[in-house]
Amino acid sequence: MKATFTDCYEFTMGNVEFLEGRQNEISYFDLFFRKIPQKAGYAIFAGLEKVIEDIKNIKFEEEELKFLKEELGCCDKYIDALRNFKLECDISSVVEGTPIFPNEPIMTVRGPKWQADIIEVKLLNSVNYQSLVATKASRIRHSAKDKNLLEFGARRAQGDSAALWGSRAAYIGGFNGVSVVEAGVKWGIPVSGTMAHSFVQKYDSDYEAFKAYAKAFPDNAVFLVDTFDVLESGIPASIRVHKEILEPMGKRLKAIRLDSGDLAYLSKRVRKLFDLAGMQDVKIIASNSLNEYKIFDLLADQNAPIDTFGVGENLITGGNEPVFGCVYKLVAIEKDSKIEPRIKISENVDKITIPGAKKTFRLIDNNTNKSIADVILLENEETPSAPYELFDPKDITKRKVVSNFTAVPLLTPIFKKGELVYELPSAKESKNYCIEQLDTLWEEMKRFHYPHKYYVDMSMELWELKNKMIKERRGVLK
Amino acid sequence: MKATFTDCYEFTMGNVEFLEGRQNEISYFDLFFRKIPQKAGYAIFAGLEKVIEDIKNIKFEEEELKFLKEELGCCDKYIDALRNFKLECDISSVVEGTPIFPNEPIMTVRGPKWQADIIEVKLLNSVNYQSLVATKASRIRHSAKDKNLLEFGARRAQGDSAALWGSRAAYIGGFNGVSVVEAGVKWGIPVSGTMAHSFVQKYDSDYEAFKAYAKAFPDNAVFLVDTFDVLESGIPASIRVHKEILEPMGKRLKAIRLDSGDLAYLSKRVRKLFDLAGMQDVKIIASNSLNEYKIFDLLADQNAPIDTFGVGENLITGGNEPVFGCVYKLVAIEKDSKIEPRIKISENVDKITIPGAKKTFRLIDNNTNKSIADVILLENEETPSAPYELFDPKDITKRKVVSNFTAVPLLTPIFKKGELVYELPSAKESKNYCIEQLDTLWEEMKRFHYPHKYYVDMSMELWELKNKMIKERRGVLK
Repeated sequence: MKATFTDCYEFTMGNVEFLEGRQNEISYFDLFFRKIPQKAGYAIFAGLEKVIEDIKNIKFEEEELKFLKEELGCCDKYIDALRNFKLECDISSVVEGTPIFPNEPIMTVRGPKWQADIIEVKLLNSVNYQSLVATKASRIRHSAKDKNLLEFGARRAQGDSAALWGSRAAYIGGFNGVSVVEAGVKWGIPVSGTMAHSFVQKYDSDYEAFKAYAKAFPDNAVFLVDTFDVLESGIPASIRVHKEILEPMGKRLKAIRLDSGDLAYLSKRVRKLFDLAGMQDVKIIASNSLNEYKIFDLLADQNAPIDTFGVGENLITGGNEPVFGCVYKLVAIEKDSKIEPRIKISENVDKITIPGAKKTFRLIDNNTNKSIADVILLENEETPSAPYELFDPKDITKRKVVSNFTAVPLLTPIFKKGELVYELPSAKESKNYCIEQLDTLWEEMKRFHYPHKYYVDMSMELWELKNKMIKERRGVLK
Repeated sequence: MKATFTDCYEFTMGNVEFLEGRQNEISYFDLFFRKIPQKAGYAIFAGLEKVIEDIKNIKFEEEELKFLKEELGCCDKYIDALRNFKLECDISSVVEGTPIFPNEPIMTVRGPKWQADIIEVKLLNSVNYQSLVATKASRIRHSAKDKNLLEFGARRAQGDSAALWGSRAAYIGGFNGVSVVEAGVKWGIPVSGTMAHSFVQKYDSDYEAFKAYAKAFPDNAVFLVDTFDVLESGIPASIRVHKEILEPMGKRLKAIRLDSGDLAYLSKRVRKLFDLAGMQDVKIIASNSLNEYKIFDLLADQNAPIDTFGVGENLITGGNEPVFGCVYKLVAIEKDSKIEPRIKISENVDKITIPGAKKTFRLIDNNTNKSIADVILLENEETPSAPYELFDPKDITKRKVVSNFTAVPLLTPIFKKGELVYELPSAKESKNYCIEQLDTLWEEMKRFHYPHKYYVDMSMELWELKNKMIKERRGVLK
């Protein structure tokens, strides 16, 4: 990724800062989203590792500086600053695998505005996409119960970055393995895959193809059985190769894969044929435009004896909802070392930003170890301690006092004055962290249909600040 | 992109080829799609430049070879071949900007199967995504008539590769400019963008913000007017800065941007206010989750006086249809230097592949310069010449004799024995080519709602081969 992988307006705005001599002024940005996609009750945060890769060594090449100067008209002082770019921002973030909810800051950036602007698109691009996939993967994991899940979408992913990082997000969100080999090399994520239809087609029959494969991979024989006809050819050939080739070697056929047709019907027929042949241990893998709903129905409604689901385009692109809508908003500036909150007004009350430099805590009930709510406070407020009164920001008469909880900061420092201070976990660690964190959510937030809404509250001080600023702004206008 | 950016099964299949000593056998693959997305009457091909970048210098690193050997169990002979990988395939392709239709080969690959396998995902990943965006962009161009179109989706794109290459595909498909600066640096695509809400928020008012911007960019002053209130603050401030700052310098406000609210209502009010102020030349830019339908309605139904549309997530992700379904199928192998066709059977007749090494022509009517149909033939057949009888492959009694046409080969050689033989056009050239090519399609194929179906036919010889192979295959099974 080049340094100029960002939107044009970041540079025009930066140029004004330098022309006005205001380039050292500090600003505060929050990254947050407004709506959970995929009808889920929670979202899973992912994308931090790529953000770190993308911003830790930003370097503008001369060709890029020339473009910025000549095509966009950036001034020499700004070009010089870009040439010697060194990140100076403080960046905090939720860590990967964390359940996240609308309107709370999931990343915060404090630094010179021209720098916070340059990294905006890099942050949003990575977090939006990877959180989309991790969230969808978590939904699919829920619908698939304890079945094996494989991510197969590289060929239909939106570009190579999506295929690679999307496979990682799928793994963090609950998948067992992926098909892209690079993900195995880079992160040690389990990769799997055995044969395409072209492999079978090259031979004269299923039988010849499976025989060749069994000889090459006797310990990992998985046959694709639908190139010609599953029940008439694919399965009989699988049984024959199992008996003729694998059994005499003391090996077992591991699995077959169905990639078309009625998966419920076929899996039941195949299961019966294998069981009758004494091959109760042979697994059934199913793929073909699967998504969380089809998997839910195959298992919960149709009792399909499928052991592994391969999911392609509907996971890696987000299916019919391919956008995770994180935004990046200015919430404060510093003037004479004092933090001055900023707001963006909208006719749509849900789109009015929450002003001020803030911090967020997740309140965990000490008895149940379940999350009670998240609370957003102004940075200078004290950490919530028991007894603590929660209220609904949309109806402040709805109140609840909670006690015996632990307030856990939601965000972790990642960069301090531009220096990376966070040690990256492995993909496996992030995956395990996600499982642990999901365990702190009540079942009602995680259910497949109509999940219960999780509470993201504000401190009274923050709520009052927001309302005061809205009134002032609207007052100025009228 | 690493060499191991491909699916696991490509390597397990390759390993069998080497273990069996069949690695020099030649196979033929077709890349094609089955259904035009986005309710369009045609699709626009894109993705070739990235395919070339991705496959022309494939190099396996030792870390990758170690993984393939130790984790996937690839044999030494195969590992050696990968270590010394040199592309040997012949690859032909439709060129970028060409209208394409279902079931016709849009790329063909001839070469050792283990090589054709390794490049599969690289081809599909690039072509699927970029053709999706180019097709969507062409639909949006149709609905926007002659208005200016800007691609703004980088922050919501599915990864950085999607943002960058998607912006290029949008440009080829009909957009005038993009927001990602890297696309300007890399391809000379016009980039644009002026200010975010954060710019306005940093100042105390719209007026102060616009004043600073106008001073910095007097020749390119475009103000974002909805940070607080469009009609009460944004527009009055724009007019004031125009009169106070720009006019005295002999400059004009170029445009304002609306990014929220009712775009039809606001654009009409804004137009009137500017016209009353003698600012008839100031343009109106609109953005906010636009897509081809909203733009169609804003112009055709509501007569909104919008000059430029900025389109974000609904273009760069494909919106509610984020997948372009190209597949890559084995269609023939060579045995003793003879081409032997191969077929993949399916219960769904539309999913049965068209066997054989083939070539495709677009028949252009010499009188009208419009396309009559595309015809797929076996490689050894003669180029169609007048009079030529077309027939509908789904109902062969429907026939039509055409004469006075030119048969233009649809595909161009890109690699010959692994050597690049194609000179890449610039993005601008591909864009212009797309405009030219669209001109050869009848209006009925291009209309926004319920476009007419374009004909993709087969030669009688190919049709007979396909049906003979289906019968043989099914005969064997029953």
